[in-house]
Amino acid sequence: MECQLKITLTEQRKEKPASDKLGFGVHFTDHMFTMDYTEGKGWHDPQIVPYSPVTLDPAAMVFHYGQTVFEGLKAYRNKDDRAWLFRPDQNFKRLNRSLSRLSMPLIDEDFMLEALKQLVATEKEWIPTESGTSLYIRPFVIATEACFGVRASHTYKLIILLSPVGAYYAGGMKPVKIYVENHYVRAVRGGTGNAKTAGNYAGSLKAQEEAKEKGYEQVLWLDGIENKYVEEVGSMNVFFKVNGEVWVPELNGSILEGITRDSTIHMLKDWGVPVVEKRISMEDLYEAYTKGELEEAFGTGTAAVISPIGEMSWNEHKMVINNAQIGELTSKLYDQMTGIQYGLVEDKFGWSVEVTKA
Amino acid sequence: MECQLKITLTEQRKEKPASDKLGFGVHFTDHMFTMDYTEGKGWHDPQIVPYSPVTLDPAAMVFHYGQTVFEGLKAYRNKDDRAWLFRPDQNFKRLNRSLSRLSMPLIDEDFMLEALKQLVATEKEWIPTESGTSLYIRPFVIATEACFGVRASHTYKLIILLSPVGAYYAGGMKPVKIYVENHYVRAVRGGTGNAKTAGNYAGSLKAQEEAKEKGYEQVLWLDGIENKYVEEVGSMNVFFKVNGEVWVPELNGSILEGITRDSTIHMLKDWGVPVVEKRISMEDLYEAYTKGELEEAFGTGTAAVISPIGEMSWNEHKMVINNAQIGELTSKLYDQMTGIQYGLVEDKFGWSVEVTKA
Ligand SMILES: Cc1ncc(COP(=O)(O)O)c(C=O)c1O
Ligand SMILES: Cc1ncc(COP(=O)(O)O)c(C=O)c1O
Repeated sequence: MECQLKITLTEQRKEKPASDKLGFGVHFTDHMFTMDYTEGKGWHDPQIVPYSPVTLDPAAMVFHYGQTVFEGLKAYRNKDDRAWLFRPDQNFKRLNRSLSRLSMPLIDEDFMLEALKQLVATEKEWIPTESGTSLYIRPFVIATEACFGVRASHTYKLIILLSPVGAYYAGGMKPVKIYVENHYVRAVRGGTGNAKTAGNYAGSLKAQEEAKEKGYEQVLWLDGIENKYVEEVGSMNVFFKVNGEVWVPELNGSILEGITRDSTIHMLKDWGVPVVEKRISMEDLYEAYTKGELEEAFGTGTAAVISPIGEMSWNEHKMVINNAQIGELTSKLYDQMTGIQYGLVEDKFGWSVEVTKA
Repeated sequence: MECQLKITLTEQRKEKPASDKLGFGVHFTDHMFTMDYTEGKGWHDPQIVPYSPVTLDPAAMVFHYGQTVFEGLKAYRNKDDRAWLFRPDQNFKRLNRSLSRLSMPLIDEDFMLEALKQLVATEKEWIPTESGTSLYIRPFVIATEACFGVRASHTYKLIILLSPVGAYYAGGMKPVKIYVENHYVRAVRGGTGNAKTAGNYAGSLKAQEEAKEKGYEQVLWLDGIENKYVEEVGSMNVFFKVNGEVWVPELNGSILEGITRDSTIHMLKDWGVPVVEKRISMEDLYEAYTKGELEEAFGTGTAAVISPIGEMSWNEHKMVINNAQIGELTSKLYDQMTGIQYGLVEDKFGWSVEVTKA
């Protein structure tokens, strides 16, 4: 691959939003990274350019057949003005797994990490420093060939966008109410559930909307085959503390392999908390609940890091977890995970990668 | 809705490709239809404009969460220079069903049909007239809001593109070899299988590629739950003639409700051929095959109309159907269906809609 990264800086810097008005994914920085793929030539022309619109033929395959994958990770800036990425190598690994599932060309993970560092270094002033804020990073790849044949595209574009984001819980972390979805299905074995591809999210919007109308904040997804086993919550992985043990749905091909999920498992094991990765049925959870053994529940994901679950509604059953209060373990995980991310506690796992210019 | 259709004609007409060099979906006409949606305002600014690129913010939701749906239909021109659409009302009905599943705003079906007629009338000279050729019509809607929140977009763009297409079987109709897919899954109950949305196609590319490598032209999709029941073939519906009866997978929520499928069922019933819509297992088909009762098999869809299946490979079983020759019923269906489409035989069902300027 031609790795010469070309940099064109903007002449018009945007005004940065106030740190209490950031929201999630609505403000974008001054620059973006782009790289093109052409069959026979491979990935080429990596560059950092001013943030600018994408111009595509209306017949571009991404619009019609959804051949696209993405990633999501964050950069954090701490008080001594150093900037860190959290396990970015894992995101590029997963990007390649997604690309492969979608019949798209793989990227050079090492090169991408260097390019990302360069981009984030260029935009370092955009990384907010208030507690809970960060710079959300969105790499994505789209099929650009103009053709209606149902087949893989011969050309692609990879883009990385940066967006300063606010504390996920603006009013402080608050346990959410979850609707256990028994009609709509997010993913099924043999499908694309373990790839980070657009279609998985498009299909989930309807369930999410209907749950909102019923008064719930998120949907708990069950497996697509028997509608029995827990898979994910919204676009997060999910954990349950049952009688001192932590249960987490095992990776089965339809669950996204979350990086926060993996980090959580490592951290818990390091603390000596027993973690069981297994098939978890709603029946088992409900039984644990009636016995008073369902102690905590939380989602994990890059956006919210750790998100406590206060209530789950499953058919006619309503389960209030830990009196709808944030559990002790949930809280400790949040503090430790964000502590490492912001460089406030020792990074004993070697997860943080400092952003330095090449 | 503001229905005033604004028309801006191009000053630079493209050269039309030779009718034997058309291919499928690689040439596009001089104009396209576009219309925008803004929350609170509804659909607005319908217009016919010169074919031109789409410029979007790189954070536009269609790139990230795949909120997009499409349709596919055809216009035919016959020897006396009249142009016809085949059951276009059905496509706009299905477009609305897809829009609803994807949490997108519905369109006014009657207005869209008028707009489409106007567009096709404008491009009438682009409709090829050679036998087997036609003008493929691709309406699609994409989410355009720039935001990373996983929720429905507040803005959309609807576009209709036109593409003159060649005879699907350039070398004459030829039975295809089918690989019965037992690993990858196209869709599952509760998912988006019965909506015409990008993600369904993205997820199917890998299976299609692997089948090609094994020497097959298309994949036969089985249900996502038990991997037992026949759903579709490639991006077509599928039919089997067994012992004088015609079997077709019943609509179950994960199968696309094909318009050619519906037309085929009507036509067969009109001929007095018994049609059974039911769950069809591969076991049942294989049993019929071993008894010598699997007489014909074919796919149905707008692109190929009727596509004969000559061979199916299922696990260790290879089933050669009708000596890999085009069956009698398959052939009759193709002739009658295309006969109606080209205005060569009586349209007793009232399916053809003439293209006239408003
Ligand atoms: C469907 C889905 N599940 C789980 C996750 C969590 O993954 P990660 O922890 O890598 O952010 C995500 C992404 O945030 C997701 O989109
Ligand atoms: C997945 C799928 N199934 C079936 C069909 C056939 O539908 P129709 O006959 O309306 O073209 C299509 C579209 O062509 C399709 O994309």
